[in-house]
Amino acid sequence: MPAGDPSAPAAHAGHAPARVDKEHSVRVELGARSYDILIGEGLIDRAGTEVAARLPGARVLVVTDERVAKLHLGRLEIALSGAGIASSTLVLPAGETTKSFAHLERSVDAILEARLERGDAVVALGGGVIGDLAGFASAVAKRGMGFVQVPTTLLAQVDSSVGGKTGINTPRGKNLVGAFHQPALVLSDVATLDTLSPREFAAGYAEVVKYGLIDRPDFFDFLEKNRAAIFAGGPERAEAIRISCEAKAAVVAADEEEHGARALLNLGHTFGHALERAVGYDAARLVHGEGVSIGMALAHRFSVKLGLATGQDAGRVAAHLRAAGLPTEISAIPGPAIGRETLMEAIAQDKKVSRGRLTFILTRGIGRSFLAGGVDPAEVEGFLDEELSQ
Amino acid sequence: MPAGDPSAPAAHAGHAPARVDKEHSVRVELGARSYDILIGEGLIDRAGTEVAARLPGARVLVVTDERVAKLHLGRLEIALSGAGIASSTLVLPAGETTKSFAHLERSVDAILEARLERGDAVVALGGGVIGDLAGFASAVAKRGMGFVQVPTTLLAQVDSSVGGKTGINTPRGKNLVGAFHQPALVLSDVATLDTLSPREFAAGYAEVVKYGLIDRPDFFDFLEKNRAAIFAGGPERAEAIRISCEAKAAVVAADEEEHGARALLNLGHTFGHALERAVGYDAARLVHGEGVSIGMALAHRFSVKLGLATGQDAGRVAAHLRAAGLPTEISAIPGPAIGRETLMEAIAQDKKVSRGRLTFILTRGIGRSFLAGGVDPAEVEGFLDEELSQ
Repeated sequence: MPAGDPSAPAAHAGHAPARVDKEHSVRVELGARSYDILIGEGLIDRAGTEVAARLPGARVLVVTDERVAKLHLGRLEIALSGAGIASSTLVLPAGETTKSFAHLERSVDAILEARLERGDAVVALGGGVIGDLAGFASAVAKRGMGFVQVPTTLLAQVDSSVGGKTGINTPRGKNLVGAFHQPALVLSDVATLDTLSPREFAAGYAEVVKYGLIDRPDFFDFLEKNRAAIFAGGPERAEAIRISCEAKAAVVAADEEEHGARALLNLGHTFGHALERAVGYDAARLVHGEGVSIGMALAHRFSVKLGLATGQDAGRVAAHLRAAGLPTEISAIPGPAIGRETLMEAIAQDKKVSRGRLTFILTRGIGRSFLAGGVDPAEVEGFLDEELSQ
Repeated sequence: MPAGDPSAPAAHAGHAPARVDKEHSVRVELGARSYDILIGEGLIDRAGTEVAARLPGARVLVVTDERVAKLHLGRLEIALSGAGIASSTLVLPAGETTKSFAHLERSVDAILEARLERGDAVVALGGGVIGDLAGFASAVAKRGMGFVQVPTTLLAQVDSSVGGKTGINTPRGKNLVGAFHQPALVLSDVATLDTLSPREFAAGYAEVVKYGLIDRPDFFDFLEKNRAAIFAGGPERAEAIRISCEAKAAVVAADEEEHGARALLNLGHTFGHALERAVGYDAARLVHGEGVSIGMALAHRFSVKLGLATGQDAGRVAAHLRAAGLPTEISAIPGPAIGRETLMEAIAQDKKVSRGRLTFILTRGIGRSFLAGGVDPAEVEGFLDEELSQ
């Protein structure tokens, strides 16, 4: 497992920064709430004109965190003011603990203090934490106002900024409180990814791999072939982001509020969330993407144990994740050992529970995942005992 | 203005308790989110079967307040358990200050502690405060779960329980944070109205009058003719509740998220909210319905000043409200005088503001209200000066 502070600046030694040969655009089709995801280099500098084109006359509140503010806020503010958009800014502490009721209240208060109206917008500049929190604040302030995502991490660009899920954590679990609230625009400036630490980039890559594993075996092949180029910042990087966004957009369009197909996006997340909870959301031990990586490896091995998938596929998945610098075993998490009971308790509290039986995303092989609604908790316990005894 | 503690028990001396000759049912048509409002006597005793019929297999959390719990909680719990519905209960302090972030967090935590799932439901037993708070909690816990309204005040039965507006207050204003979240069922047991204080009943009656003033002049005639019977608890009471619910349901069906027509329901509310804020939501000085009563009287007099309506209509409105025991003048509010600047500041922060101009519901006469989007703040200031100098 990659060590070190996830907020440390990037090294990226030995390769050129990301260069994109063209700009990509992905449309999320949701009727009157449809919107574009723009993917390209230097898009923050165009944020003002892109926002003004979609929300004419809107004023904005930019919500960001202390780390991202240092890197990108100045450019965003210049772009907004250049397009004649009046803006104010709220800078919050960086880190998962910011996704709390206290910071929701603070964000809503900043919106009200700025006197934003329902036709105005909140702009989230940052990773998944800022996007989820600012999105939730924009969903509930005055019962819903405009929202724009400017994701600056790989995880946010391929996952959390797309699809309208917003929310916060509580001591009882991650994302247990929130709203479905679609953005009016997602601006993914891939140049911001050059500022990520290798660990943070790898964590986001876990969500990229997920789309291949859900139902795009060809994309998994592409990733196996192009992993080095994607990490090095070649045009394959933006291509992988585009395909990831298309995959997510297709699922969201089919099932906006997660009554069915959308649940497949949780591949690796039931185990992953439980692990994150077990370490108390301590990012030094485990960040979200790493939890998802272990969770996807577990989902594949659990599927093998249930006689659904082959050990060969599970091995191929784990090998690819490890090659990307991601953990695939519970034992790879540094610090005190995590017990079975702690994990079962966390799984039971997870929101993807239905009437006492457990719901998991299982798989029949790479790109053949499915929603299994009636998993027996005893089966999970037996599987975890095996995993934890290794 | 009626004096006394709004939570004091009802006197209702000299008349029989409310008796309903038949049960009413009003359908709120919102496609897949359509639902019934049942209006009748003793409906709480049928809550279990009515909930089970609409949300089969659901478990529930009942959210109520200390005052209502003493009066009605036991019956509701018996009814739920009689229908085989597992329930837990959260009892909160009574009063407007309960509509806060702190109590939202507490309510969400109770939902999570009860391990409710998205197919389960929160049941709000109480007035508008409990309905708005519990509804908001049900909207955001796990990004939305089932919700049932059991309104026990006239105001909640004719207004706040219908239409899916939920929310809380912040120090910056009332209902500035919330969600649109429709209930699966509204159970209006008119027998609960016998437990209201006369002041509380009158406050709810202000919202009944509002429907006549918006666009139902015949209903206003009905109210002028039957006010005494409605207050005394005759069958006209349930009839007035039914017509009020139909009026609100029609508006909500046409404009669920308040992009246009629904705004008419705010007749009297821009001034009313400003007055409530000016007294710091001190219920001893002013409760919501009283604010709306003064607000409706002001909206009519403001319309007269603007040359839109006749003084005769404004006088008829004020006379009816006064006969119902409701205030119609700012000066009727006890305590320190309220200044123009305080009111203008509160109006500007109100969410019904659009790009600097003020939005008011004005009227061309009884039942002829309309949305006026570009009101000049100077006109409002001049009008308030006149009102405050009296």
